[in-house]
Amino acid sequence: MTQEQPTAALLIIGNEILCGRTVDKNIAFLTKALFDLGIEAQEVRIVKDTFDAIIHAVNALRKAHTYVFTTGGIGPTHDDITAEAMAKAFGLPFEEHAEASAILLNHYGDQYTQARRRMAMMPRGAHLLPNPASSAPGFYVENVYVMAGVPSIMQGMFALLGSKLTPGDPIFTETMTFYIAESMIADTLRSLQEDNPVTDIGSYPFFKNNQIGTSILVRSRDKNALDHVMKALMTISES
Amino acid sequence: MTQEQPTAALLIIGNEILCGRTVDKNIAFLTKALFDLGIEAQEVRIVKDTFDAIIHAVNALRKAHTYVFTTGGIGPTHDDITAEAMAKAFGLPFEEHAEASAILLNHYGDQYTQARRRMAMMPRGAHLLPNPASSAPGFYVENVYVMAGVPSIMQGMFALLGSKLTPGDPIFTETMTFYIAESMIADTLRSLQEDNPVTDIGSYPFFKNNQIGTSILVRSRDKNALDHVMKALMTISES
Repeated sequence: MTQEQPTAALLIIGNEILCGRTVDKNIAFLTKALFDLGIEAQEVRIVKDTFDAIIHAVNALRKAHTYVFTTGGIGPTHDDITAEAMAKAFGLPFEEHAEASAILLNHYGDQYTQARRRMAMMPRGAHLLPNPASSAPGFYVENVYVMAGVPSIMQGMFALLGSKLTPGDPIFTETMTFYIAESMIADTLRSLQEDNPVTDIGSYPFFKNNQIGTSILVRSRDKNALDHVMKALMTISES
Repeated sequence: MTQEQPTAALLIIGNEILCGRTVDKNIAFLTKALFDLGIEAQEVRIVKDTFDAIIHAVNALRKAHTYVFTTGGIGPTHDDITAEAMAKAFGLPFEEHAEASAILLNHYGDQYTQARRRMAMMPRGAHLLPNPASSAPGFYVENVYVMAGVPSIMQGMFALLGSKLTPGDPIFTETMTFYIAESMIADTLRSLQEDNPVTDIGSYPFFKNNQIGTSILVRSRDKNALDHVMKALMTISES
């Protein structure tokens, strides 16, 4: 195992999520997709589409994590300010990106209006993220990947972007379900966690069909340590 | 309308959400419930269950917002560190809360084990938030409300907590759907937003049954301004 493993943060941009109108679907998709690449998402922020909120968040996150992924706010309307906010956050000029403009012109032809031209405005030097669904590209600057908010479009961008990311060592994960209250096994779990610090043991109570239960989720980049913990859990399960 | 309106932040605590194992349901519920109380959720953070992450986030959020609501990490297992993190964040002793302990003893009787006693450990002076579903209470310290992570339990706590919150002036909201690309109305929306700064006009593209469309969501505490914008939108709709 290498010492330094990549980390990530997500920045979800949009008032519609903060007022409960739209249920975000991008967090679940991206955290899972990153996990599968061995990249641990360590933090998510959802912010309003104001310059202050976006700039403050992206500047905090991009310094703390290997990768930052943003969703939302890159369309053609007045409330789409993510690209301009990124330019401000990085202290870069905000200007028409020639390649993005060519893609949009090719897609829209004589319908390439002033409003649509806004979708080609980016921080200077931005690298494009192709959009297989609806042409208007996302982009990245340094370690910040700026993607669409519509889940199907974002997922299309992410699928093509995957190869640009350096994966971490695989994170192995196993689950065991107990049909007892988590407090019944709390002491055992605590010692298991203390004895196996390279694993992450999570305990999640649930109530299903009027039955109390506990899901134990164990994750580790060290397969042997994971197996060791799972064997120990099996012993409780049988006792 | 009063000048100062209440704001809120959510702090969602738990590794299971950051690795994509569990899809969070509390953000959608709470943002909507707060919106209905006239309280604008301005920011959401999802953090790992480590002391550093929780303390850093809660200290940033509680200074910036009228209310902070946390979910997750108040159960009896080793990964439930939210209550202790709150004590550290507020610089308060972490100790058994007599009233919480009495509630738990009453519920569990001679099954009130050492592990369950942990659920009565709170920052000194915490006020309890009753839990109608499973007895173990949440609590609040100053403006930070600490609730369970299991959605049904959290919702039970929030229902009883509502009366403790000071609502804001109502936020009125209207939606209009156009079956055209948002760029077609982008210029009109921009002027409408500029002319009506006390409203918040959001434009959300969608793709449904192979048809492109745009939902316009208008929100305002000023009903007249909202009506004015909706009338103007109607004119586009008819043109």
